[in-house]
Amino acid sequence: MIKQLNREDIANMQERERARLINSLSGFKSANLVGTQDAQGNPNLAIVSSVFHIGANPPLIGMIIRPDTVTRDTLSNLKATGFYTLNHVNADIWQQAHQTSARYAPGISEFAQVGLEVQHEAGIAAPYVAQSQLKFALALREVQKLEINGTILVIGEVMDIQLPQQSIKADGYIDIESLNTVAISGLDSYHKTQRLGRLSYAKPEKPPRALSLDGE
Amino acid sequence: MIKQLNREDIANMQERERARLINSLSGFKSANLVGTQDAQGNPNLAIVSSVFHIGANPPLIGMIIRPDTVTRDTLSNLKATGFYTLNHVNADIWQQAHQTSARYAPGISEFAQVGLEVQHEAGIAAPYVAQSQLKFALALREVQKLEINGTILVIGEVMDIQLPQQSIKADGYIDIESLNTVAISGLDSYHKTQRLGRLSYAKPEKPPRALSLDGE
Repeated sequence: MIKQLNREDIANMQERERARLINSLSGFKSANLVGTQDAQGNPNLAIVSSVFHIGANPPLIGMIIRPDTVTRDTLSNLKATGFYTLNHVNADIWQQAHQTSARYAPGISEFAQVGLEVQHEAGIAAPYVAQSQLKFALALREVQKLEINGTILVIGEVMDIQLPQQSIKADGYIDIESLNTVAISGLDSYHKTQRLGRLSYAKPEKPPRALSLDGE
Repeated sequence: MIKQLNREDIANMQERERARLINSLSGFKSANLVGTQDAQGNPNLAIVSSVFHIGANPPLIGMIIRPDTVTRDTLSNLKATGFYTLNHVNADIWQQAHQTSARYAPGISEFAQVGLEVQHEAGIAAPYVAQSQLKFALALREVQKLEINGTILVIGEVMDIQLPQQSIKADGYIDIESLNTVAISGLDSYHKTQRLGRLSYAKPEKPPRALSLDGE
């Protein structure tokens, strides 16, 4: 049976229930840990599910964060230092990653609290997560308040990428499934993946062709 | 062995290779078909992998599109009508969904070309995809050009949601895995999912607790 919800039905829902429903709508979400440090070098770590691609040249990544929640320290840190890291959550650390969303007091390191390790990189004023297999550092390019609901759009440019050599395929594609990167649905559900296939660049009058993992 | 790429390495890559690499960085991406129609009611359909959650109250969803590619018609249509639909890509239609990214001439319906069916909804000036199990319609709220690279941020408010009754759990969570919704990695890889688990709301000094699918 099909359920249909209109604008009024949604407005009348209980707040937490609506949050779970609307957070499920966009589909599977990326699972990343954002690493920052304050002006004194104290590390901070927070899970984010709203990281998205903006452009490849220059390499730009966006993320939406809320100024009034546990990502408040993330926002002030990345503004202070101009840097942050994004670290893929994998199937070995998904529970620790989720725990970073607890409201620890400012000055408490989520790394220490959840049992993840800081990895420093020369020239990058933000901590990596040692246990993450694919990680990259960004220089802050833009912080913009979305007036429609007060959330913050953060845009950064990729300055450094670290990943296992064998996960990059000949055509540039990264096999993130082989790194056990997880996906999120809703607010709290974590998923591993199984590849259906890669498809060739689509052209009119020609059905897509299955590609090998190497893109051939 | 760990491979490290710096800013210069990335800048020196061949263009298509860099596009595949950078598009792989954000993690798993949502897979949606965006449905629009022009002022004459001609339907248009395009796959998008950059749909993300902005807020639950009001229910706001964002997406990034490029003005210079196959989503050009999508952009002009949603500006003309003020409406668009987002339709989850599932494991039964992932190949047809991918094929909508071919550059069909304006006026050609991707629905007809790839073999997907238009579903009309009263009061919504945009077509749904009949074969999609979870779909929702949005009223356009904002179109903003991101000056940093010329891509377009589109924000819409959810006006109508349609999905199988049994996929909504008691606490509002939608089991999109049960609907066979797929995830995308890079530009062309499609993945089904397998749930690791749901976790309770995180609190300091307390490890996360596994939740049932119903959120208990």
